[in-house]
Amino acid sequence: ERTGDPEVVYGAGKTPVQIVELLRTLHATHGGRAALATRLSPEAQELVAAELPEAVVDPVGRTAVLGTVPEPSGTVAVVSAGTSDAPVAAEAATTARVFGAGVELITDVGVAGLHRVLGVRERLAAADCLIVVAGMEGALPSVVGGLTGVPLVAVPTSVGYGASFGGVAALLGMLNSCAPGVTVVNIDNGFGAGVFAARVARRAAPAEVKEQ
Amino acid sequence: ERTGDPEVVYGAGKTPVQIVELLRTLHATHGGRAALATRLSPEAQELVAAELPEAVVDPVGRTAVLGTVPEPSGTVAVVSAGTSDAPVAAEAATTARVFGAGVELITDVGVAGLHRVLGVRERLAAADCLIVVAGMEGALPSVVGGLTGVPLVAVPTSVGYGASFGGVAALLGMLNSCAPGVTVVNIDNGFGAGVFAARVARRAAPAEVKEQ
Amino acid sequence: ERTGDPEVVYGAGKTPVQIVELLRTLHATHGGRAALATRLSPEAQELVAAELPEAVVDPVGRTAVLGTVPEPSGTVAVVSAGTSDAPVAAEAATTARVFGAGVELITDVGVAGLHRVLGVRERLAAADCLIVVAGMEGALPSVVGGLTGVPLVAVPTSVGYGASFGGVAALLGMLNSCAPGVTVVNIDNGFGAGVFAARVARRAAPAEVKEQ
Amino acid sequence: ERTGDPEVVYGAGKTPVQIVELLRTLHATHGGRAALATRLSPEAQELVAAELPEAVVDPVGRTAVLGTVPEPSGTVAVVSAGTSDAPVAAEAATTARVFGAGVELITDVGVAGLHRVLGVRERLAAADCLIVVAGMEGALPSVVGGLTGVPLVAVPTSVGYGASFGGVAALLGMLNSCAPGVTVVNIDNGFGAGVFAARVARRAAPAEVKEQ
Amino acid sequence: ERTGDPEVVYGAGKTPVQIVELLRTLHATHGGRAALATRLSPEAQELVAAELPEAVVDPVGRTAVLGTVPEPSGTVAVVSAGTSDAPVAAEAATTARVFGAGVELITDVGVAGLHRVLGVRERLAAADCLIVVAGMEGALPSVVGGLTGVPLVAVPTSVGYGASFGGVAALLGMLNSCAPGVTVVNIDNGFGAGVFAARVARRAAPAEVKEQ
Amino acid sequence: ERTGDPEVVYGAGKTPVQIVELLRTLHATHGGRAALATRLSPEAQELVAAELPEAVVDPVGRTAVLGTVPEPSGTVAVVSAGTSDAPVAAEAATTARVFGAGVELITDVGVAGLHRVLGVRERLAAADCLIVVAGMEGALPSVVGGLTGVPLVAVPTSVGYGASFGGVAALLGMLNSCAPGVTVVNIDNGFGAGVFAARVARRAAPAEVKEQ
Amino acid sequence: ERTGDPEVVYGAGKTPVQIVELLRTLHATHGGRAALATRLSPEAQELVAAELPEAVVDPVGRTAVLGTVPEPSGTVAVVSAGTSDAPVAAEAATTARVFGAGVELITDVGVAGLHRVLGVRERLAAADCLIVVAGMEGALPSVVGGLTGVPLVAVPTSVGYGASFGGVAALLGMLNSCAPGVTVVNIDNGFGAGVFAARVARRAAPAEVKEQ
Amino acid sequence: ERTGDPEVVYGAGKTPVQIVELLRTLHATHGGRAALATRLSPEAQELVAAELPEAVVDPVGRTAVLGTVPEPSGTVAVVSAGTSDAPVAAEAATTARVFGAGVELITDVGVAGLHRVLGVRERLAAADCLIVVAGMEGALPSVVGGLTGVPLVAVPTSVGYGASFGGVAALLGMLNSCAPGVTVVNIDNGFGAGVFAARVARRAAPAEVKEQ
Ligand SMILES: Nc1ncnc2c1ncn2[C@@H]1O[C@H](COP(=O)(O)O)[C@@H](O)[C@H]1O
Ligand SMILES: Nc1ncnc2c1ncn2[C@@H]1O[C@H](COP(=O)(O)O)[C@@H](O)[C@H]1O
Ligand SMILES: Nc1ncnc2c1ncn2[C@@H]1O[C@H](COP(=O)(O)O)[C@@H](O)[C@H]1O
Ligand SMILES: Nc1ncnc2c1ncn2[C@@H]1O[C@H](COP(=O)(O)O)[C@@H](O)[C@H]1O
Ligand SMILES: [Mg+2]
Ligand SMILES: [Mg+2]
Ligand SMILES: [Mg+2]
Ligand SMILES: [Mg+2]
Ligand SMILES: [Mg+2]
Ligand SMILES: [Mg+2]
Ligand SMILES: [Mg+2]
Ligand SMILES: [Mg+2]
Repeated sequence: ERTGDPEVVYGAGKTPVQIVELLRTLHATHGGRAALATRLSPEAQELVAAELPEAVVDPVGRTAVLGTVPEPSGTVAVVSAGTSDAPVAAEAATTARVFGAGVELITDVGVAGLHRVLGVRERLAAADCLIVVAGMEGALPSVVGGLTGVPLVAVPTSVGYGASFGGVAALLGMLNSCAPGVTVVNIDNGFGAGVFAARVARRAAPAEVKEQ
Repeated sequence: ERTGDPEVVYGAGKTPVQIVELLRTLHATHGGRAALATRLSPEAQELVAAELPEAVVDPVGRTAVLGTVPEPSGTVAVVSAGTSDAPVAAEAATTARVFGAGVELITDVGVAGLHRVLGVRERLAAADCLIVVAGMEGALPSVVGGLTGVPLVAVPTSVGYGASFGGVAALLGMLNSCAPGVTVVNIDNGFGAGVFAARVARRAAPAEVKEQ
Repeated sequence: ERTGDPEVVYGAGKTPVQIVELLRTLHATHGGRAALATRLSPEAQELVAAELPEAVVDPVGRTAVLGTVPEPSGTVAVVSAGTSDAPVAAEAATTARVFGAGVELITDVGVAGLHRVLGVRERLAAADCLIVVAGMEGALPSVVGGLTGVPLVAVPTSVGYGASFGGVAALLGMLNSCAPGVTVVNIDNGFGAGVFAARVARRAAPAEVKEQ
Repeated sequence: ERTGDPEVVYGAGKTPVQIVELLRTLHATHGGRAALATRLSPEAQELVAAELPEAVVDPVGRTAVLGTVPEPSGTVAVVSAGTSDAPVAAEAATTARVFGAGVELITDVGVAGLHRVLGVRERLAAADCLIVVAGMEGALPSVVGGLTGVPLVAVPTSVGYGASFGGVAALLGMLNSCAPGVTVVNIDNGFGAGVFAARVARRAAPAEVKEQ
Repeated sequence: ERTGDPEVVYGAGKTPVQIVELLRTLHATHGGRAALATRLSPEAQELVAAELPEAVVDPVGRTAVLGTVPEPSGTVAVVSAGTSDAPVAAEAATTARVFGAGVELITDVGVAGLHRVLGVRERLAAADCLIVVAGMEGALPSVVGGLTGVPLVAVPTSVGYGASFGGVAALLGMLNSCAPGVTVVNIDNGFGAGVFAARVARRAAPAEVKEQ
Repeated sequence: ERTGDPEVVYGAGKTPVQIVELLRTLHATHGGRAALATRLSPEAQELVAAELPEAVVDPVGRTAVLGTVPEPSGTVAVVSAGTSDAPVAAEAATTARVFGAGVELITDVGVAGLHRVLGVRERLAAADCLIVVAGMEGALPSVVGGLTGVPLVAVPTSVGYGASFGGVAALLGMLNSCAPGVTVVNIDNGFGAGVFAARVARRAAPAEVKEQ
Repeated sequence: ERTGDPEVVYGAGKTPVQIVELLRTLHATHGGRAALATRLSPEAQELVAAELPEAVVDPVGRTAVLGTVPEPSGTVAVVSAGTSDAPVAAEAATTARVFGAGVELITDVGVAGLHRVLGVRERLAAADCLIVVAGMEGALPSVVGGLTGVPLVAVPTSVGYGASFGGVAALLGMLNSCAPGVTVVNIDNGFGAGVFAARVARRAAPAEVKEQ
Repeated sequence: ERTGDPEVVYGAGKTPVQIVELLRTLHATHGGRAALATRLSPEAQELVAAELPEAVVDPVGRTAVLGTVPEPSGTVAVVSAGTSDAPVAAEAATTARVFGAGVELITDVGVAGLHRVLGVRERLAAADCLIVVAGMEGALPSVVGGLTGVPLVAVPTSVGYGASFGGVAALLGMLNSCAPGVTVVNIDNGFGAGVFAARVARRAAPAEVKEQ
């Protein structure tokens, strides 16, 4: 295996039975290493829970994890404003964990409430990589990116209506962020952000090394 | 005249000679009331300055004002991040003044520098209407709108490149602002924002009335 | 609380049970001040009516209001052409009321029937802020804005088909209005227009002051 | 010749010399019947005027007509708001004349000035076909179409900036017109509207026949 | 009534009961003159048929007509390629009839089968106005428009998939037609085309007059 | 070399000197096999003609060919409507020749003149691959594709204005062609069409083989 | 019949009964030559299987074939990455077979796994025409096209989410391929690619002829 | 200063004199720490070179650096296909260096030449962060991302024509990459990618730490 990364099943467009079979096979084939399934319908979540009782199913992030998650190395902070963006934030968090990073979830942090953003400043600075999830105008990464030099991956979500165009407004906002060093993934792609951030966090030097 | 509003010449696509003629005529016809010309090319600015020495020409906002500006009534605060958005901010400010409001310019206030935003909080709260000008991701209105309940008009600018699409990213960001009560005008339309904000400010009750 | 504004529950994507709980809690926490819920599904409307009998549920605007609405201060006129735009107009009207303005509804006023527009001219001029709701080509704000100098917020609706692109045609029409001083909110965003217009109306000087 | 229509040279992308040659040849070949050239650059207009002194060159509409225009049959009214739309209105008018219709130009009629629209009501009703030219939000056809049952062709122009997107806002406005029976041509396509309207006007029954 | 046009009920978004009531009222109010309802769901068609047995319901065009259709004056030819575009063609045809024109339906005429187009050439030339309905690439109006000088209204349909973008490809094709004098209505707007074409046909001079 | 294809210099964004150097080197390195340069500015064409007198420069297609073109094998027919599309047609033709096919140019064939299309039917059928070049509504490939079963590559051009959107209308028209078996290349990409068609033509069996 | 091509029923928007009737009639009329139906719903597949037992129904490609498929002539290779693109690949493969080519399916070949692409290099080179099917970023045709000079038709699929815009990202990727000689069909249009590729393959010279 | 990052002057829209002044001031104010200027016009580059002889001006990347660049920590590899993308790659490389990373440039690596990609596999794996720059279809990040687990930032460029839409095709391709863990910045934003990658590389653990 190229990168030693866990195996992943993309659940969209697959039947519950297919997903259970894929998880079981991947888990068996790869010596118990964690296998991750994303984008699970409620039906798929139910069947996974019933058939693979040792799997950890997250109804918010619509994920299932089967097998041993690696020891966390480095820290990814997943920042989001609220309940509508929670599924994408949870997908990112679970993915980052399964890909080997420690994860801290920072929720209820929005652009229109600056004191909450300022209140988490220390926690942001302590992370090795930030994932900032936002819908609507997608401005949160600019605000967070202005507060810290930690690498920041922005995830636009499809939350919104009208001229949000299914997440396009947030995507464009993030691509045009005036905070330098913001990178972006596809709309609702918590998975991609989680993989990337875990890779960054895993290779981050331990604090004592960095401080030298 | 319906609203008693000043006369306006939209300079784009007009020759310097045409603009001078229009300003002169409007000024004469309307008894010395201020006439405003916008979107003046450098050549038009020069000819206006030469032919109508009593006109006030603003090379930043590309405007000229001929005649007596009304006594200011109420206050419009025009907020922007920096030099690239200055022309639009200046067009908005001059327009609001000519349409009868007092104007306060608040510059160098950007999303990625929250302390500067927080530092002007009092001045924002003291205004009767806010005009917030921003390009790129257009996030400034959301941040400002989260700090105050003053009516806020957002002006997207065409500043940016690539996926800013000539101001579309900023426009969409503003239309999807998570701060309630943000309204938006066309890209680079400092004029429209100035007219609107002046109308709001002019009809705002004097402070003593509001406080009752 | 920053602005003294009422609390609001955005009902889209929330279960009826969640909405009832949120309304109840907000109402209790904020000492009986009105709480507003928007975008309620028929099921949510029903449960709110059953569980919170003192709430006022509006099936047209899909809103519920629980608690005492403030004394109205200033007047917002909500103008629309017909039954298709009625839900957005009603959402705007209820929001403006809950945010403290008096509201006048002017319906059945369309671009293709000028005599009806001209017939309400006095009522338009008497308002402190106008909300003009229109779908399809979104031309009504231009016509109304040409008749009066009252601040005007335009709300595009998703009413239409084909090249209306879910309200984009109306949105663009309004952003490009040839009537100066028209501002715009997101497609179907009656709520945002209502908040903004109430803020303008509330700070409008009483008639006797303005006339001086 | 299929329709007996005049010959047309589309001047965009052609050199002045090519245009003069084409006009001369078409005129000679078709027995003196009028030949029309559109989209002429200032240089092309100059050369046509110099080389073909009997040609009628219109610098506003950027057209040249060489040869005898047919006797007018029926009336086309070309309606527009102002100077910015004048080139397209003039192209439409000249084309309609060369294609055999009588033409009446009605200018300075805009959406934000209803009294001027109402003032030309009789002249609109007397035409056999209307061409309504408008940029920005493109609302004029809806207003005019609400006043009369005469067939109406709308021409969006590229006049505007920002979210007018080079005429797209006007085009969409016209396609979504709430006035029934509005048809539309391409942005700035005064030529196409002129051809169409002339065909409608030419086949319109004389007034005495229609009144029976 | 301004134009003497029939009354129309736009059925989309109305309940079957509302539609029946509206048809009944309009018919009663306007002295038996035909009332037209469009965009009827199967349920609405059924209820209209049951409640208003004298109404003519067309399941293809999804229309209902109640009352006496005017004597036809002039001829509209409605041209389309096949079964997928039939609903829009039928809506156009019924509308044109109710608005007072005689109608001829020419079906199974497509761009990729030129012999069928050439075979109907005479019938095209005999009409007073053509309505050409096409989806996918929307090329049929160009081909038909190249064969005749009869005024031609093109109707793009939402038939297609992928890069047809719900009729946008056809719409753009028609707006850019190389056949001069093609005008266009909104996607699937058979109604608008029918109104327009009937107005053109009704005012067309009888054949004997035209031939003089 | 993988395919034995000639070497190509894409001239856009290169200086005349760079282009001459590249052509000279490629020609020397590949033993005299033809090298092709495309998208040459007038300045580049001039310098190539001066410095490499044995090169064949085509000012219409903006190409230069240096070295021996291969013996033609199979026939590509390049079909287009007129002078505006000529540069793209010429680029396609030269490319196909340099890539080893015989080429036949069929010009002045447009959708709005069916008799000219029908008149070249035999020549179309005799080719091994067709390249059909068209701007504006891009309908020519559908008409040609309906007349023959020869493989057909469509090339949209950026010819047009307004809602042609720089060739997008033609591109969409071609992608949605109702003639089965039409494939498409990028806007103005005569080069790509030429490479593809030459590959098809070169591997086409000689007529005697096909007829068995 | 023009090309001797089989008859095709496009199943989208047709009832199962209509599809069975059409297949039966076409088969009877054309002397047993194969008739192909595409885009069959599960219900249509079931009815075809029940009513026309001699038909070959493919649930993956959603096709049915009734009658004798021609002797294969030449080879089309259909390349795709995985299960999500399988329906489009199968539609292309079945179509190419019914239109007279031999077909080889090469699956599980993706951009992010270069060794699998390199492993099928010989099989790609042996084909007369390639169909490369890909969703998401649509990069597979560029990679395959860089490995071989065989004519290549790319088919974008609607597989993906967010900024894939229903296949638009893949479509644009393919239109801009840096591998020369890639042509493209509409999103999900396996049928069109199959028709085209079969035409190319059928006229390809047998290997012995080409090698001369 | 928050992050210790160097000061940056964005040269677009600034005069050469302004740029020289800004560089001089920043350099003086920040104790000789490097100041970076990007997007310099040829005129600005010339004036910087003349006025600030100690500055390092890069005409390819259009940058100037004044002052001491920090000791490199960690390695960023900047990968691109060729000369057209060189300016963006150079801007990324210079930025990453000025922000404290070591940089390796890997050029002439394109999707259509897999052997060159495979040939640099070791160098890719040795980096701490990859920047992959590509225009047209933007497929290079997918191919590179499939070969390595190093964090990868993709930069779309505006290189291309027609349906590349100024870099949009490449942007969409990268956002939809099938290689997991690809993040994206704005079109042509080498600066943003450089800042981000340097931050990742700087905090990467030295090889000996990672290997434990
Ligand atoms: N939520 C997600 N969004 C995007 N890609 C995903 C997601 N989940 C999994 N993937 C990708 O899908 C691949 C597996 O796809 P599949 O073989 O179809 O299950 C994984 O290797 C991931 O790269
Ligand atoms: N910068 C501007 N942007 C948009 N509209 C403007 C601007 N300046 C002036 N206008 C409008 O243009 C009208 C005058 O147009 P005109 O008669 O063409 O000079 C004024 O009444 C304003 O409504
Ligand atoms: N302004 C115009 N806009 C669109 N089409 C035009 C225009 N002027 C002329 N044409 C068309 O261009 C054709 C002549 O094109 P050409 O042969 O290139 O000069 C005429 O037959 C008209 O159909
Ligand atoms: N999957 C498909 N995608 C696009 N066009 C198709 C498809 N299947 C069949 N067609 C076309 O549809 C025509 C038949 O349409 P119809 O007469 O509506 O069944 C055929 O001649 C084909 O050109
Ligand atoms: Mg958000
Ligand atoms: Mg900004
Ligand atoms: Mg409306
Ligand atoms: Mg206008
Ligand atoms: Mg069609
Ligand atoms: Mg063309
Ligand atoms: Mg794919
Ligand atoms: Mg590239």
